[in-house]
Amino acid sequence: MKAAVYEGPCNVKVKEVPDAKIERATDALVRITTTNICGSDLHMYEGRTDFERGRVLGHESLGQVIEIGKTVDRIKVGDIVCLPFNISCGHCANCDTGLTAYCLTLNPKPGMAGAAYGFAGMGPYNGGQAEYLRVPYADFNCLRLPREAEEQQNDYVMLSDIFPTGWHATELAGLLPGESIVIYGAGPVGLMAAYSAMIKGAAKVMVVDSHPDRLRLAESIGAIPIDFAKDDPVDKVLELTKGKGADRGCECVGYQCHDSQGNEHPNLTMNNLVRSVKFTGGIGVVGVFLPEDPGAPDDLGKQGEVVFDMGLFWAKGQRIGTGQCNVKAYNRRLRNLIEAGRAKPSFIVSHQLPLSQAPEAYLHFDRRDDGWTKVVLKPTG
Amino acid sequence: MKAAVYEGPCNVKVKEVPDAKIERATDALVRITTTNICGSDLHMYEGRTDFERGRVLGHESLGQVIEIGKTVDRIKVGDIVCLPFNISCGHCANCDTGLTAYCLTLNPKPGMAGAAYGFAGMGPYNGGQAEYLRVPYADFNCLRLPREAEEQQNDYVMLSDIFPTGWHATELAGLLPGESIVIYGAGPVGLMAAYSAMIKGAAKVMVVDSHPDRLRLAESIGAIPIDFAKDDPVDKVLELTKGKGADRGCECVGYQCHDSQGNEHPNLTMNNLVRSVKFTGGIGVVGVFLPEDPGAPDDLGKQGEVVFDMGLFWAKGQRIGTGQCNVKAYNRRLRNLIEAGRAKPSFIVSHQLPLSQAPEAYLHFDRRDDGWTKVVLKPTG
Amino acid sequence: MKAAVYEGPCNVKVKEVPDAKIERATDALVRITTTNICGSDLHMYEGRTDFERGRVLGHESLGQVIEIGKTVDRIKVGDIVCLPFNISCGHCANCDTGLTAYCLTLNPKPGMAGAAYGFAGMGPYNGGQAEYLRVPYADFNCLRLPREAEEQQNDYVMLSDIFPTGWHATELAGLLPGESIVIYGAGPVGLMAAYSAMIKGAAKVMVVDSHPDRLRLAESIGAIPIDFAKDDPVDKVLELTKGKGADRGCECVGYQCHDSQGNEHPNLTMNNLVRSVKFTGGIGVVGVFLPEDPGAPDDLGKQGEVVFDMGLFWAKGQRIGTGQCNVKAYNRRLRNLIEAGRAKPSFIVSHQLPLSQAPEAYLHFDRRDDGWTKVVLKPTG
Amino acid sequence: MKAAVYEGPCNVKVKEVPDAKIERATDALVRITTTNICGSDLHMYEGRTDFERGRVLGHESLGQVIEIGKTVDRIKVGDIVCLPFNISCGHCANCDTGLTAYCLTLNPKPGMAGAAYGFAGMGPYNGGQAEYLRVPYADFNCLRLPREAEEQQNDYVMLSDIFPTGWHATELAGLLPGESIVIYGAGPVGLMAAYSAMIKGAAKVMVVDSHPDRLRLAESIGAIPIDFAKDDPVDKVLELTKGKGADRGCECVGYQCHDSQGNEHPNLTMNNLVRSVKFTGGIGVVGVFLPEDPGAPDDLGKQGEVVFDMGLFWAKGQRIGTGQCNVKAYNRRLRNLIEAGRAKPSFIVSHQLPLSQAPEAYLHFDRRDDGWTKVVLKPTG
Repeated sequence: MKAAVYEGPCNVKVKEVPDAKIERATDALVRITTTNICGSDLHMYEGRTDFERGRVLGHESLGQVIEIGKTVDRIKVGDIVCLPFNISCGHCANCDTGLTAYCLTLNPKPGMAGAAYGFAGMGPYNGGQAEYLRVPYADFNCLRLPREAEEQQNDYVMLSDIFPTGWHATELAGLLPGESIVIYGAGPVGLMAAYSAMIKGAAKVMVVDSHPDRLRLAESIGAIPIDFAKDDPVDKVLELTKGKGADRGCECVGYQCHDSQGNEHPNLTMNNLVRSVKFTGGIGVVGVFLPEDPGAPDDLGKQGEVVFDMGLFWAKGQRIGTGQCNVKAYNRRLRNLIEAGRAKPSFIVSHQLPLSQAPEAYLHFDRRDDGWTKVVLKPTG
Repeated sequence: MKAAVYEGPCNVKVKEVPDAKIERATDALVRITTTNICGSDLHMYEGRTDFERGRVLGHESLGQVIEIGKTVDRIKVGDIVCLPFNISCGHCANCDTGLTAYCLTLNPKPGMAGAAYGFAGMGPYNGGQAEYLRVPYADFNCLRLPREAEEQQNDYVMLSDIFPTGWHATELAGLLPGESIVIYGAGPVGLMAAYSAMIKGAAKVMVVDSHPDRLRLAESIGAIPIDFAKDDPVDKVLELTKGKGADRGCECVGYQCHDSQGNEHPNLTMNNLVRSVKFTGGIGVVGVFLPEDPGAPDDLGKQGEVVFDMGLFWAKGQRIGTGQCNVKAYNRRLRNLIEAGRAKPSFIVSHQLPLSQAPEAYLHFDRRDDGWTKVVLKPTG
Repeated sequence: MKAAVYEGPCNVKVKEVPDAKIERATDALVRITTTNICGSDLHMYEGRTDFERGRVLGHESLGQVIEIGKTVDRIKVGDIVCLPFNISCGHCANCDTGLTAYCLTLNPKPGMAGAAYGFAGMGPYNGGQAEYLRVPYADFNCLRLPREAEEQQNDYVMLSDIFPTGWHATELAGLLPGESIVIYGAGPVGLMAAYSAMIKGAAKVMVVDSHPDRLRLAESIGAIPIDFAKDDPVDKVLELTKGKGADRGCECVGYQCHDSQGNEHPNLTMNNLVRSVKFTGGIGVVGVFLPEDPGAPDDLGKQGEVVFDMGLFWAKGQRIGTGQCNVKAYNRRLRNLIEAGRAKPSFIVSHQLPLSQAPEAYLHFDRRDDGWTKVVLKPTG
Repeated sequence: MKAAVYEGPCNVKVKEVPDAKIERATDALVRITTTNICGSDLHMYEGRTDFERGRVLGHESLGQVIEIGKTVDRIKVGDIVCLPFNISCGHCANCDTGLTAYCLTLNPKPGMAGAAYGFAGMGPYNGGQAEYLRVPYADFNCLRLPREAEEQQNDYVMLSDIFPTGWHATELAGLLPGESIVIYGAGPVGLMAAYSAMIKGAAKVMVVDSHPDRLRLAESIGAIPIDFAKDDPVDKVLELTKGKGADRGCECVGYQCHDSQGNEHPNLTMNNLVRSVKFTGGIGVVGVFLPEDPGAPDDLGKQGEVVFDMGLFWAKGQRIGTGQCNVKAYNRRLRNLIEAGRAKPSFIVSHQLPLSQAPEAYLHFDRRDDGWTKVVLKPTG
């Protein structure tokens, strides 16, 4: 089958690889019809992780079930399914309590938790930027979609990762209806966080970025764009909140955070959030931070450490929640919103391309070229 | 009246000061019968804050109401009351939602929230290590005690701060019955956190410190003591939890954290907690961190910054909650536990002294002299 | 001053009564500019309660502060304020935990909790369908509005009761974004429950009633109308939810519930809800039920008892939450939604009349005359 | 194999039945070493359900895995396991959110949810009062126990049902530490509810029953016994709570509730709870109520209806949560409490008998003979 393969830093090729197939009686085999490139793919693309050369990328996928293992009960051949990026066993202590992003079974690395398709450090599973994908524990890991989903794949595919992840950011922040929230980062996840906040009835949603195309998208869904190349974002948030600070904040940037001069500062958004958010406010962090980052510009960064304004954070009595999204915690309800016509997350899609154009897509998306907000690939069908 | 007055670093005197009195119609005047020295008093005592010379110290107080303002309705002369260390208005946006530690009305410093008796940066209110104390908004700020409380003042006085604060640490950590929890710091607040965890039905409570007297107290209530002078606390916690880490952790030390050689490392407990607590676990921080600390040993410290293992924290999907305790969130229920004989927090009291001996008490408590766990002062009656 | 006075069953007169005035130092005096007739006023109007003749009606009011008592700190003369229908002390055990609808201080009847303006069984307080209103504990009981509120009083006045009460119904039901909900009753509160559910991101909102004008309003905000005169509502809900039942349900009718033939059945909506809502679903009940109802058509009703499908309710593992709304739990956030232009609850207003026309308004509203959805009175200004 | 078989009303026989065996690749086969008779078995025993003659009873079981299906991954032969009474698939919409008592997959009856071993209306699964038990979806439905569990089986077997069910009652009631709670019914589940409340730090636990042996057990764990044959339980609870009512209440009796004269009143405990619990309090109902009860003494009862004090319930703003316990929501944490020596639920065991004596055990337990609190059967080992 054809697949997008990581060949080294800034080098993705579409090539033939061995076909995905059923390996265990609990697997399903899915023909991928839509799959996205995610901002977290870029950490791997840039060589800032230990992702192995030759592996298939991609963890945001949707397709049709073409074969099932012998003990798959709920999922049937022909079902249209969206696959959460997390792969989970469904019966460990974490899965049992809904913490499916931290499955204790499927990550073979000792002392680690959580597995994903085509992801550094998240187990040996191949990605979905390919014609076919093997889905372990299919009854647990497939979200069935309504028949009409076929016509609206660019909406439903967002259920695999960025829509729930943006939603998770607002959950970690503790957002309540009628509150204000500031979101740092207007990449796909930041935009989905803003969109989630709007759906949940936030009174005021502020989005901080410096890319005009992304800020325009934020504005298009009712958020207030803040261009940090023009304004100090903390000052702006305080001004928009009568000096109090936002009720809640989200980090949707991660460790590869750049200032307006293009210099990397992994602590920039975290410390800005502490200053932007009110006393007793909550902060949700879904932007990726790594325990080790050998490519970091300094020693602290190499060890995954940041200089954090702990004193101010504590004095303000704030809270931080972090980590990857437990997609299954939200994906049924978000599917229902799409089905009811109350959510259309495809508004962020800028490019729909065949799988063969994955290399160009990676290049432009990684450079944050103007207008390359979100790329959807169509491997088959 | 007589009161314990801060006269400069490591210098507390008991002297005559003007009598506390009713200043507003919503005040009550309380004759103090029991009042404690708190670990956070030591930050002021050591001159590590901007606490003004000449001010009365003390924010853990219990006594009898001897006069009330004209519009005090609920509280009556003669009531035995315990005073939460936070002074709150009861009608601002934060008080309305139970965040009484972050009252927006009573701290006159612009941009600050929260007030307290005799506390640096928390408004001009005098402390309770004195014969009398003025209590603003008395209907809101007095907890009435049962008549029998007079015989059990050393239990009930703990409702003013450290019992609720220890409890708050476990709430911020998200502790559920049947879980394990590690508490860094076996000072009075750490011991109260451990005691709270036991009352709430934790399965395993581990307490890290290096003072044998404090570790013995931890053991006496059913906790597992970990002496960091003998064992690496992270290794020990992992060993006690089958390699998984504790479900929850509490920081009850604060920025003045010392290693076993006596060197100060404000980030030591925070980073140990990230390593001691399991994936998806919660961390509650009630140890004090300051936005500015001019007396800190290095530049980061002076600005209230710490080098924090953000990468590991994020990868583990953990949560942190911080800040001073909203005492009123818990004090009625904890009072009921004392009244029912189900809690006896006075087990930590090592010394009961007249107010006149406050200077010696400060000296010994600040030096963590063996056996000086908690000092209770008796200004009157 | 002029006020709408209850003179006996189905008899309201606008007449001169003694001026409202400051009685305690914690009071404010408010000149009422907008005040509504509420569905619960009709229980009193019809003589189905023990409301005293000669008392002023009205508990949904907005106006301008014209005088304050000596110890009022937060509220100033000139403030535009909306008054929660509950009057609360702000310092009892219930108010302390946000249960302001169940204030233990202000209802003089032994064994009762909760007070309100112009309401049967809720204390001696006069209502706001008058030129002036005395507001006890003004710092706690006034919600300050932005200056622009003067132009948008018909939106902001809904913060006094029905918008928060409709919201409360969805909170008691446990509604999450992306879920489905069925609301029995499309009176003002039912419509506000539906509106709240839409704001919170419900995927599907179904509203059951038989008045075409009310069902049209439900439809206008995106809800699905169900006319119980045409369809069996339980069958219809099951059909709209693929046979599962709604995730959540709200009772916005109360004990005076009529079938399509006009017969009163106090248990009708409750039992329909149990059948309409899925296994494990939640039901919120804000429609009024009374412990005693001497005017009820049968003996059970007189004692406030209903024949309830307990067996089915238990087998389905459902939950019920009940009671009057703690308005302060939501009114700041709902105000922020109005201020941000994200909520316009005035869409339900059908009639805006001077106070002098209160008698006609009561008559038409009580008869559910077509088009009389919600009446707003303008006593002054 | 030998098993306890239902042969008709009040007729249980121990006889040979076909061996339990692996039927699907996801099953495990467990040799039962300890299994209990439950109060809910008595509804079947008395013929008050549609339980089929010839079926094996028993849903509280513990044993050793002796064989596993081909796709069982987590559970190994030799594991000592306790089986939740609910049988759940682990991947339906309810299981995904922890509502394993309402599994949508395993109950074959249309429109029903939830399955259990040897239980009327809960699917065709045989019970565990037998030498062997087939466990469907074994990875999801087995709780692994520590090796030492073999010595403490009478504690660990309680994890199958009554310990979590009693715990669930307190969760449904919303109990917080430091609160008071009244429990109606001192059968095994009521005693476990009381025990759970003690573990969670309730300040005051009151237990209502009329059997002296059961009330003595309640007292032995620190609860306050209330004998309804001697005192009006509502009056007593009000007296013990200074007139306010208990913060929380639990129904642990169910529809077969008898007054002190022995007459059945299915609404007796529910209405007493409404009167015993404070304004805004919560009520948890784990006692069984049935949608249809052909053997009921009156017409309402036959249809599963009760005359409920809805008016008082609503006026008090109370909440009710109901239903069978989702055992997996609590069983790991409760296991940890047993393992840590902090819970010993076997204190309720009155009789430990071989399986062959099941008939006598049913007889005495059903008659509530003095001292027959809880029977533990030992089929093998």
